[in-house]
Amino acid sequence: MGAGSIILSEFLGTMVLLLFGCGVVANVLLTRTNADGDTASWVLITFGWGFGVFAGASIADASGGAINPAVTLASAINGGTPWGQVPFYLIGQFLGAFVGAVLAWLVYKLQFDANEDNSGTLNIFSTNPPIKKPAWNFVTEMIATFALVLFLLVNPYGSSPAIYGAAAAVVMGIGQALGGSTGYAINPARDLGPRIAYAVLPIRGKGKPDWGYSWVPVVAPLVGAVLAALVALIAPVKTG
Amino acid sequence: MGAGSIILSEFLGTMVLLLFGCGVVANVLLTRTNADGDTASWVLITFGWGFGVFAGASIADASGGAINPAVTLASAINGGTPWGQVPFYLIGQFLGAFVGAVLAWLVYKLQFDANEDNSGTLNIFSTNPPIKKPAWNFVTEMIATFALVLFLLVNPYGSSPAIYGAAAAVVMGIGQALGGSTGYAINPARDLGPRIAYAVLPIRGKGKPDWGYSWVPVVAPLVGAVLAALVALIAPVKTG
Amino acid sequence: MGAGSIILSEFLGTMVLLLFGCGVVANVLLTRTNADGDTASWVLITFGWGFGVFAGASIADASGGAINPAVTLASAINGGTPWGQVPFYLIGQFLGAFVGAVLAWLVYKLQFDANEDNSGTLNIFSTNPPIKKPAWNFVTEMIATFALVLFLLVNPYGSSPAIYGAAAAVVMGIGQALGGSTGYAINPARDLGPRIAYAVLPIRGKGKPDWGYSWVPVVAPLVGAVLAALVALIAPVKTG
Amino acid sequence: MGAGSIILSEFLGTMVLLLFGCGVVANVLLTRTNADGDTASWVLITFGWGFGVFAGASIADASGGAINPAVTLASAINGGTPWGQVPFYLIGQFLGAFVGAVLAWLVYKLQFDANEDNSGTLNIFSTNPPIKKPAWNFVTEMIATFALVLFLLVNPYGSSPAIYGAAAAVVMGIGQALGGSTGYAINPARDLGPRIAYAVLPIRGKGKPDWGYSWVPVVAPLVGAVLAALVALIAPVKTG
Repeated sequence: MGAGSIILSEFLGTMVLLLFGCGVVANVLLTRTNADGDTASWVLITFGWGFGVFAGASIADASGGAINPAVTLASAINGGTPWGQVPFYLIGQFLGAFVGAVLAWLVYKLQFDANEDNSGTLNIFSTNPPIKKPAWNFVTEMIATFALVLFLLVNPYGSSPAIYGAAAAVVMGIGQALGGSTGYAINPARDLGPRIAYAVLPIRGKGKPDWGYSWVPVVAPLVGAVLAALVALIAPVKTG
Repeated sequence: MGAGSIILSEFLGTMVLLLFGCGVVANVLLTRTNADGDTASWVLITFGWGFGVFAGASIADASGGAINPAVTLASAINGGTPWGQVPFYLIGQFLGAFVGAVLAWLVYKLQFDANEDNSGTLNIFSTNPPIKKPAWNFVTEMIATFALVLFLLVNPYGSSPAIYGAAAAVVMGIGQALGGSTGYAINPARDLGPRIAYAVLPIRGKGKPDWGYSWVPVVAPLVGAVLAALVALIAPVKTG
Repeated sequence: MGAGSIILSEFLGTMVLLLFGCGVVANVLLTRTNADGDTASWVLITFGWGFGVFAGASIADASGGAINPAVTLASAINGGTPWGQVPFYLIGQFLGAFVGAVLAWLVYKLQFDANEDNSGTLNIFSTNPPIKKPAWNFVTEMIATFALVLFLLVNPYGSSPAIYGAAAAVVMGIGQALGGSTGYAINPARDLGPRIAYAVLPIRGKGKPDWGYSWVPVVAPLVGAVLAALVALIAPVKTG
Repeated sequence: MGAGSIILSEFLGTMVLLLFGCGVVANVLLTRTNADGDTASWVLITFGWGFGVFAGASIADASGGAINPAVTLASAINGGTPWGQVPFYLIGQFLGAFVGAVLAWLVYKLQFDANEDNSGTLNIFSTNPPIKKPAWNFVTEMIATFALVLFLLVNPYGSSPAIYGAAAAVVMGIGQALGGSTGYAINPARDLGPRIAYAVLPIRGKGKPDWGYSWVPVVAPLVGAVLAALVALIAPVKTG
């Protein structure tokens, strides 16, 4: 598969992932939206992100639907993705994440403009732990990504399209179960792309993008993915 | 496939879509229903609409389960639906949407009658943005429909029945993620058919159908669908 | 398939359907349960019932997973189920519904005993519309069952096991969208079996089983199913 | 399949099950998490556990995805699992449950440390009925496990990967419908492994592990599984 196709495929898929993901959090956190006042917000957020995984990964089917640098890294370690293609995956993923966040902002432009206090709107774009202690936040992101990538490497759905629904279900579960501690980046592009978007978008009264924390949701998922790739090398798989 | 079969197939599918879709909003917004008082209303609404997509599109399987003029338009542009059949699709879709909304009203007739203030019941039938500025509402509907149609055109589920479940999942995600800003019409028939129903149904103390806004949820989805069809022409697809 | 096998298969499936269905409502309505105090009760109830359809219909796969006299009737009209087998289906379904309700009561025996006011516990067993006017309640149950049976008769999943998941999704949607008006029996066995159980079970301070209303959720679903069977005769289906 | 492969496969799968399961309850019960304040907690918990079943059972596909001693016991009775392999299944399951609970604690370490009152945190690890009367709690756990195991033994999904999604759906339903009375262990490893973890983990101000109750969620699921295995021997199954 050509470099351009990989970039475009991953770009479109990650763009839709972030469009959904940033969108659902905007729906919950901003006022004068249809989800404003709902008290099932974490249910809504985790389903919205999960369906974003499903839509985005399906759209990126031509390139395997990675839409996550941690997944691409693990796939390269396990021999699924040629190392020479990895940079093209990453380019598509980070660009797509940035553009998807911008599109989500456009969708909720009226609400951002009408919102009295936009100081906490970083949470719409990037993860921002309720209790911020980078060393422990790192552990959380590492474990959550480990679970995702282990599933992706040893799951029985292979490269059939069913894998995108399966991955979405697992990401829903990770959000519901493990996302309460750090906000579950589990994907470096998902976190860094929108953080850059937040830094440059003209949102009145916005807060800081918190660059000091930004390395955790980038590095920890990569470490978790490497650990999962190593475990997957010894994990039993069904044979013929 | 004959004109009559297309019309009947799309009519039945879109009818069931709107029966579910208007029904779930009625369940949430009216009093003395079983969902009255629930505070997870947006979760309920987005799942109810999504399962309506699943039921309706499955029922319209004979004609491809479009049940949405924007989807039919994109399919015609991309060569999936003959242009000569498009009018029959639209007739079935708009008629079905009207009748489905009427059926939903019948289901909740007792609640409409018992409701003290029916002035806000347009929301049960058609979209009505929390912040109404047609230009930006247009952008939102265009982006949301773009995501839906891009998915439908490049998804790996093809014309297998799995596509209806996949489409339902994506519509659930669009509702949760992007529906907070305009109410996510993403379907001209879904919005205009019930709006006409609202205008003619004998609901005591009902509000106005807001014809001034009615063009946005008709035109914006069509524009979004055209953009998606153009992008789909260059999007990579998995080969053999 | 022998009469005994039909009865046993439908008995087990309908039993599990009612175990889940009565169970989830007990979880919501009784005090000192884990769902006590949740305000997403209709979301919980509709998913619980839907998964009950999935489990029950899958368990009754040997007999086609009808677990609903209205479905069996429509199937007989459309030539799917021999008329001579219909009585065996109904016996299994009504017996299973009764026993499933008793099992759900056993599961929540401690909560029934601890509940201060059991006068409203009929709602755990059978449908009990928030606004009771039998003629309109009949219309609601008829339309809701029409949608379910139309889906089952023209859906593209045929007799593959995927149909049970599909049926569950549609029942979830019916509950969310149409269940707010009458409580969505859409199944004579589901309503009458547990109503009889409620009448005979030793629940301290229980209310009356409301026999005066009991015919609506039995007859209306059958009428809706007949209408759906007639529409299905002319509905287009995909051809080879 | 070798003993080591069985142990490792079941270990990894049960570990991920408990990581998700204990995680989602921690997300709900602890303060300063993202689900803190949500009032749809039982919805969130039952979906989180269900997706944990899906992820864990899929990961353990090589060994059949049992991740539950009650399921393994029933499978042995029905001839699916050789009795000689049962001990290896149990070792993997109990070890995995213990380690998964520890990982969930690591994920929420900051929240455990910040929590004012950890005396009720046993509920994050193991089941703890709202009304504790072991004899009736036993009945509840027995019935709930009976439903799960009956489904697994007679379901039409066989050993295809679809069974893991199907099992997850059924466990979601069991949680929503039957989990309100005892907290739905329905799995001896799921309950005992985390209970041991709770006993040994350094959680400031934690409560007691309640060994007096610990036998119920171990023995009752086994009894329910045996009953289901016996019923499955006579339950009709679809023939060619």
